[in-house]
Formats: sequence, C-alpha cells, structure tokens
Amino acid sequence: MSSSDTMEKLVSLAKRRGYVFQSSEIYGGTGSVWDYGPLGIELKRNVKELWWSRMVHQRDDVEGLDAAILMHPRVWEASGHVEGFTDPLVECKACKKRFRQDTLADQACGRKPSVTPGEDAACELGEPRLFNLMFRTFMGPVEDAAHTIYLRPETAQGSYVNFLNVQTAARQKVPFGIAQIGKAFRNEITPGNFIFRTREFEQAEMQFFVEPGTDDEWFDRWLEERMAWHLSLGIREDRLRIHEHGPGELAHYAKKAVDIEYLFPFGWKELEGVHNRTDFDLRRHEEFSGKRLQYIDSGGGKRFLPYVVETAVGVDRTVLVLLTDAYREEEVEGEERVVLGLHPRVAPIKAAIFPLVKKDGLPEIAARLARELREAAIPSFYDESGSIGRRYRRQDEAGTPWCVTVDGQTAEDGTVTIRDRDSLEQVRIDASHLEGWIRERLR
Amino acid sequence: MSSSDTMEKLVSLAKRRGYVFQSSEIYGGTGSVWDYGPLGIELKRNVKELWWSRMVHQRDDVEGLDAAILMHPRVWEASGHVEGFTDPLVECKACKKRFRQDTLADQACGRKPSVTPGEDAACELGEPRLFNLMFRTFMGPVEDAAHTIYLRPETAQGSYVNFLNVQTAARQKVPFGIAQIGKAFRNEITPGNFIFRTREFEQAEMQFFVEPGTDDEWFDRWLEERMAWHLSLGIREDRLRIHEHGPGELAHYAKKAVDIEYLFPFGWKELEGVHNRTDFDLRRHEEFSGKRLQYIDSGGGKRFLPYVVETAVGVDRTVLVLLTDAYREEEVEGEERVVLGLHPRVAPIKAAIFPLVKKDGLPEIAARLARELREAAIPSFYDESGSIGRRYRRQDEAGTPWCVTVDGQTAEDGTVTIRDRDSLEQVRIDASHLEGWIRERLR
Repeated sequence: MSSSDTMEKLVSLAKRRGYVFQSSEIYGGTGSVWDYGPLGIELKRNVKELWWSRMVHQRDDVEGLDAAILMHPRVWEASGHVEGFTDPLVECKACKKRFRQDTLADQACGRKPSVTPGEDAACELGEPRLFNLMFRTFMGPVEDAAHTIYLRPETAQGSYVNFLNVQTAARQKVPFGIAQIGKAFRNEITPGNFIFRTREFEQAEMQFFVEPGTDDEWFDRWLEERMAWHLSLGIREDRLRIHEHGPGELAHYAKKAVDIEYLFPFGWKELEGVHNRTDFDLRRHEEFSGKRLQYIDSGGGKRFLPYVVETAVGVDRTVLVLLTDAYREEEVEGEERVVLGLHPRVAPIKAAIFPLVKKDGLPEIAARLARELREAAIPSFYDESGSIGRRYRRQDEAGTPWCVTVDGQTAEDGTVTIRDRDSLEQVRIDASHLEGWIRERLR
Repeated sequence: MSSSDTMEKLVSLAKRRGYVFQSSEIYGGTGSVWDYGPLGIELKRNVKELWWSRMVHQRDDVEGLDAAILMHPRVWEASGHVEGFTDPLVECKACKKRFRQDTLADQACGRKPSVTPGEDAACELGEPRLFNLMFRTFMGPVEDAAHTIYLRPETAQGSYVNFLNVQTAARQKVPFGIAQIGKAFRNEITPGNFIFRTREFEQAEMQFFVEPGTDDEWFDRWLEERMAWHLSLGIREDRLRIHEHGPGELAHYAKKAVDIEYLFPFGWKELEGVHNRTDFDLRRHEEFSGKRLQYIDSGGGKRFLPYVVETAVGVDRTVLVLLTDAYREEEVEGEERVVLGLHPRVAPIKAAIFPLVKKDGLPEIAARLARELREAAIPSFYDESGSIGRRYRRQDEAGTPWCVTVDGQTAEDGTVTIRDRDSLEQVRIDASHLEGWIRERLR
C-alpha cells in the first residue's frame, strides 16, 4: 500500500466513524484545519487525560497551568518570535503559488506543484522574503501596530512568564516543572498530511526548572520518561526512534534537542521534542520586562536563574500516530475487515453491547448493561441494528476492544459473551462481573 | 463588605493560592485576559469534567465534538456575525477613550470614567459607529480581505456545520444533541469584573436538534436539567434565578431565551443561556453553502430542518461563581480565617496530609498516604511546613475539604485524624479506610 493510499484510507475512515472531519466542510473546508468528531474527541481526551495524570497528578514536582492564548506582545519580542519565527517564502512568478524555500527540494523537483500534467516548465521563482508564522490580530477597536497581538505559536512562554507566580503559590522548590495543554497557532505556508501539520493545533508541554549543572541529568531522565509514555499508549516500539539535533539544526535557545520520531506513512517525523532551553527564555524575559525571575532557595539561600528542560508533544500528532499505528486491513472468517487496534486505554468506546435479536427482552437487558457501564464511567455503546457480523465490523473500525452480546442464555443464567476485537476469541462471563472484567484490562 | 472589596479580596486570594494570575503580569498584564494557576486549572478541569460526564458520557442522545477555532469566513456571514455582531462604539472627544454607547448609562452618569476626581466636565461624545466584536486575522501570507478569517465568537456554529457529519457517523436519530467545550474570543470594548467578561473565554455548550413542534417541551426540559447541574456543584440556590428575555431583548435568531443568572458581588448577571434558536442557523447555512442540511428519518421517511435548543454556559463564569459562592471570612477558634467552602466534588485538592511533627517517621507515613491517594486518582497534597494551625489555614484558603493528620498514634495503631474544613469536626479512622472514606463523599 503506498503512503498516500494509507493516508487516504485513514482520512476516509476518520470521517466515516466520526473521528475527524474537515473543518467547515460544507463550505469547502478551511485550509489545514480539522474538527474532531464524537470518537475523535474521546480519543484525544484520553490522550490528554493520560498525559495530565502521569505528568501532573501522579507527581508532586510538576504543577499544572492554563495560560491564555492571547499574551502581551512583548512576550514574543523577548522570546525571539517576532524577529526570528519566520520561514523563507518564495513565489512562483508563473502560477503565483507560494512555497517554503527551504523545503522546495521535497516538492516535485523544484517545479511548481500546480503545473498541469504534461506541462513541463520549470517554476520561475521570485526573491525569497521572510514570512512570520505568527497569526496577528488587534486588541480593541483600532487596527494599528500599537494594538497588535499574536495568537501564541507555542504554550511554553506562558510557563516562563508565570514561573515565579506558580513557584510561590504552589510553594515549590527547584527542581520542579510547569505543565500545560493548550492550543497554539502557526500560519504555516505548507501545512498538510492530515492532522500532522495544521495551522491550529494542541500541545502538551512541560517546562522543568532545574539548577544549572543538573540539566544534563534531568534531560536524560525526561527523555526516558517521555519514551516510556508513548510506549504505554500501545505505540509499536519499532516505529519510534530518537533523533538528536546536530549543531546546525539546534534552535537558537537550545543547548541540546532530541526528537522522538514516529514512522508515519510519509516517513520518520517528529512526534515530540525534548529540549534543553538553558536559561535563555527566563533571561530574555528578565531583560524585556525589567523584572527579576531568579529563584531564591528559602532553605539554602542560593539564588540562580534556572535552566529549563522542556518536553513538548503534539496532541493531534499523537492522535494521528495512534490512528496510523492501529490501522490494519486483514481477512478474518473469510471476510475483509478494517480494524483500528487501539489500546483499550485510549479507545473511545470500551465496550459495545448487542442484543442478539430484537425480541424476548434482550434489547432491554443489553441497554441496561450499557447504561450501567456508562454510570460506572466506562464508555459504552448500545447497538441493535443489523446482523451481529455487521455490528462487529462497525466496532472493529471504531476501535472498540470488546463486543458484548446478550443472548437467550443471558435471560436464563445472567451470562454474556465477550468477543475480543484482536484475537476474535469469545469468553462467557456473568454480566455482573462485566464492569470488573473491563476495568482490570484498562489498567 | 462592598462589591469592589469582595472582588479585590477574591482576586488577591486567587493569586496567592494559585487559582488565577493576570496574563503576562510581568509585562503589566494583557487587557482582561487571565491565566489559571495550579489550583485554578484543577477547579476548571473539574467543572468541565462534570459537565462532559453529565452532558455526554451519561447520555446516549448527546455526542461530543471539538470543532476548530478557525473556521471558514462564510460561516460567520451565514450566522449573521459579520454583519450584526457589533457594539455601538463612541469616543470621548476630550480623553479619546472609547465606550459602548448602550451601557454608558451604567458608567458614571455618562461622564467619561477617566475624568480626574474633582473635575466635572461632561464627556463630549463623538458619533457612534458600529464595531464588530470578532477578532480577525489572516490565513496565509497575504493580509487582505480574501484571506481574512475570524477567531470564533461562539462554539455553536461548529455544531451546526457538522450536524450531518455527526448525525451520520454516530448513527443518531433526532432528537439528539452535539456538545462542545472550547475557547471563543470577543473583542469586547468594556470587558471586566475579573474573569466574568474576558476577551478570551471558554464555553461549554450543547445544541439539541429536535423536530419542530417539540421544541417548547425540550426547552423546558433542558432549562430544568441545567439548573439542576448548577445546584449539583454546590452553588447556593438563593443566588440563582431565572430571567426570561422580553420581546425587545431576544436575539434575531431566538424564539425564546432564558438566562440562568447568579448574584455576583456586582449584581445579577448571566451565567448560562438556554435558547430556542429555531432552524435559523441550519437554514442560513443551507442558503450560504448551497448544501442540504435536512434530517432524513431512515425509519419514518420524514424530512425536516430541525429546531435547535441550545444550552451555553461560560466555564470561566462558572469558576467565578464557585469562587464567589464559596468565599467567606469568619472567626473560628478565636482567629480570623478565610475559607473557600468549595463542594468536595469541585475542590482542586481533596485531602491534605500532614505529619504532626517532622520526626519519628511521621513524614514518611504521611508522604506515603498522599502518594497512595494520588495513585488512586484522589488529588492530595503533602505538607510538613509550619504549625498545624498554619497548615489548616492555607488549606482553608485553598478550598481543601479535608486535612488528614498523621500523629504518634498512627505509628501505633494505624489511625489518622480527618479534620473537616467547614464543621471543624475531627474524626479518627483507620488509614487503610481513607481512600474509601473520601470517595464516598465525592459521589
């Protein structure tokens, strides 16, 4: 299967089962912006909940924060984004399309991709100009430079400007971290690959403030921890790898940067970045705001500007990884089926409950079971429509790990069958044990 | 206590305890934008989780959706926002400040609020002009009308344009609803009152699609359900009331609109709106997109454009209500104390665990208890610093319902004392029952 085939099938499944829709589809779509449907939002919620639980709730050295998208414009001068967050933009003189100069090589031998088939003219490119990737808007009724604000291109700066607020209110001692999940925006010239590179996206990132000199050790610990997290979501180990940035790739603020990459259908690409940002950001904010951001150790009396180890993962990218990684086509029971083999921990629906037939009181029993599971906070779905085989296929595509069938025997002895999405094995258990049976497997 | 006193105290407590910080504070703040600190985000998360659980997970007739903030600009032409989402803006010729003409009466007798004390000149106002409240920006590198997009001023339109996508993918039948929680933006001329009216805010709203003729009945059911939800958060009943919009107040799309209002320190104000939006939005989107949005009942063969009953609550406003409602100053044990009497269901920290003294192995026992509770998904906080009285006071301000103390007897017989934030009563229970004891009270 070619890479574009795979992506097309994923996009089609995502729409059909309610994972991801094109934004404003009835108006022809919004460029590289996507909406999450009923299953998609549950998958994304599960990813975010697992991240938050592990990064914030289960630790006593990381605090949560939810900074606003609209920040003071000086923040982006201090961070270097106003000056430096640019891509070189070139325009084709013939077709007027715009491209990123630095990735032209990846695009049809430098000819304009809009060239009509058969036509073979090389694209005549104009002079490159630097294009800032921050979306800008205006606060208040006057649209001028003094009222320009930006949609944040990263959530991290919210943690830096709030460093002392959080440290003081939460009475934390360095080393400690600040974690955020939130939207960020980049006016990409060439977004694409479904939800891989979008203009509006969600980040889950954590800034860990450490004493200089201990940053290398913390870097290694966080890299290991983050890799362990991806594996805990059920992502295949052989599709994950580590890529360390060479001296030429390093961002201006970074002492060291390692990407956790995933083998997407379109190649190895960044899923998460772990960065040693040194004291660059805090130092710049001290300079631009005129406020001290030093940490003062109330016990030892030490004062220093902490170094920062950042872990930053794309939430949408993680969703794309989970969908890609789980997607498979196979033949079972003499039939083709499409399966999303999502780990039960992240699957939107944990159990689908079917009455074998629409009579003899089976629908009532099945609907009650589904309701009881929902009340016990186990997402469940009742379905009585179509043959059992068709109902299985729909749940296979939806990624539901277990289908529970209520049949004639249920009315007699209270047992139900559970069919496993992957092994296709069926077990029969007492319906009253269903909640516990499922919960055990979600650990 | 005057209303501005109360608000000042709340803002100060919110900062001190890490509930809410001013956005970009080190740069002097961003106008009417706020950041949620470690406790604030947990309070907000609890509000959103309770809403999502009750509105989506516990129901089989409501589907979740997460539409993007950036939508196709035609969406806002169809919805009427481009043309009509405006406030009349007037400028004072003397001080150049701008005001909303329709709320001038509320502001210092129509004189400019920026007038210096003693000065008594009436504000000389210019001609009013209509100012659109949508933030606009540009997608792609060209900043012109053809590339203008807006930050959504409400989440609802995402549900309308996705109506058929969701209905088809989730195989729902009308009546059913689409629920969303997400950020929206309004370039308010006069925002204010802390997190009551902000330029960036979060909505939790649900669009319920019904057959015309059944809309009045559904309106009443949803209004009742929403009021019940607010009460379930522990909000005082006597500070909630219903206000029905008169014919002059109704929005252009609404057949009926009822606000659930709360008695804030600055008066009765809208907390939630329940609206009968008829088929206005779907009809307009049919017209502007050229796509049919009719519902076709696969069973009965009926076709119709559904009516919509909307419930829309501000998440930030709910947080403000909870903080305001819970705030009290009182004298206990001969001492002044400030308490946030938050309902345990929404409180950020459920239990604080203290060793009575910093020796005899008590810190280890207490820290282990805190860790065990966290692992059982009960947010808990370990604190060994300062006298027990000071630790109580800090948790009272943080809104923590239970303080658990590990003392000499714990080492002997495994029991701990639990002190209730409100009644101040203490009970002694076996530490191994702590998790169950707390969980029972969170139901």
